[in-house]
Amino acid sequence: MDLTTNAHSHHISQQFNAELEQLKNHLLEMGGLVERQVGDAIKALIEADSDLAISVRANDKKINQMELDIDEECTRIIARRQPAASDLRLVITASKAVMDLERIGDESAKIARQAIKLCDEGETGAPKGYVEIRHIGERVQRMTQSALTAFARLDVDAALAVAQEDKNVDREYESAMREMITFMMEDPRSIKRVMNVIWSLRALERIGDHARNIAEGVIYLVKGKDVRHLTIDEMQREVEAD
Amino acid sequence: MDLTTNAHSHHISQQFNAELEQLKNHLLEMGGLVERQVGDAIKALIEADSDLAISVRANDKKINQMELDIDEECTRIIARRQPAASDLRLVITASKAVMDLERIGDESAKIARQAIKLCDEGETGAPKGYVEIRHIGERVQRMTQSALTAFARLDVDAALAVAQEDKNVDREYESAMREMITFMMEDPRSIKRVMNVIWSLRALERIGDHARNIAEGVIYLVKGKDVRHLTIDEMQREVEAD
Repeated sequence: MDLTTNAHSHHISQQFNAELEQLKNHLLEMGGLVERQVGDAIKALIEADSDLAISVRANDKKINQMELDIDEECTRIIARRQPAASDLRLVITASKAVMDLERIGDESAKIARQAIKLCDEGETGAPKGYVEIRHIGERVQRMTQSALTAFARLDVDAALAVAQEDKNVDREYESAMREMITFMMEDPRSIKRVMNVIWSLRALERIGDHARNIAEGVIYLVKGKDVRHLTIDEMQREVEAD
Repeated sequence: MDLTTNAHSHHISQQFNAELEQLKNHLLEMGGLVERQVGDAIKALIEADSDLAISVRANDKKINQMELDIDEECTRIIARRQPAASDLRLVITASKAVMDLERIGDESAKIARQAIKLCDEGETGAPKGYVEIRHIGERVQRMTQSALTAFARLDVDAALAVAQEDKNVDREYESAMREMITFMMEDPRSIKRVMNVIWSLRALERIGDHARNIAEGVIYLVKGKDVRHLTIDEMQREVEAD
């Protein structure tokens, strides 16, 4: 199914095309900012950079506003243009993706809050768990980026790869979590500090989930199939069954 | 603004009215099941009832399917009926609420998983943190119920009360969390067990957030104002500024 040709044939007005294009651009712009937030939050935590952490928290307000604006844009398009078929799917996918992006922003702000807490407590060493944070952090940042690229290019294979990667992140998260619990048992004085690391790991794992949601939206957009709650194998079969 | 009269005057077809009514009923039906899941998950954990926990996990599949079905229903209504004004707001609010209900279901399933883990480990006493779980659990279950009632009755004041209550839950959650960390430091052998309690507390706190989201949706539906990301005071002012 060629979505672009499909869409063109549907549109009576060039203006409508332009509006959909603009919606896409707004979403990708928000996505770019959110993706930077993920990277900056991890950097702030690992390098104990409280200025950077404060700027992440400030940017979160901007992201919240973007969510409201893009959501309003979606509602306006539905009300005025009464889109059908793939155009409607684009608007619905965008309005869901915007929510996931906002949540990724939220989780980044939570990591930034942990960074500020650790800086305030004067803990600036390289403690237990930072290797895992860096590693999982890079993965989920890449996932966010890939999900947005998949959306921009309507690339189903790339979207599937993001869903697959989320499985790997979940596995690494579970393993990191077991390690953190072991650290706490071995050195109870480290409990408070390790709990901060645990909250950051949890936030990263959630970011992976949201990137996967966005990727599933891309599959819905392109294929018209709702693949939420499916295993990777089931998803693959759904996508191939055309 | 009388939404019901408003809606009636908009509808050419009785059929459309019936479809919107049905959408509302499906959402409330899903809401009823989700609310029971919250209660059952807490009961399973506190009473170490692994059969109940297993049934909560099984019901989660049903809830996932309800999400897909209601979401499809929303898309179908938008595509066929091209709703405007308050009708469109109803469909949009429903499609968001359904997502929050599904997440509440997810969090309940997580609590059920902790319950099963604790049963497997043969820990059936009344350990530290259960008082807090019971207390916060009752609160968020009531919040979920109130948010759904507010939706059914288009009751803005009840919706505001849910948002207000979320603040209280957050405060209690923070305090319970500090207590859990103290327990772990005092008795490092309890770390694994307390971590299970911590994950359940976290899940309950998230359930409160989702109930608040649903309540904010009710305000959008009735007042046409998007009150997300506002403080309670700002929300109150927005609602009164008619």
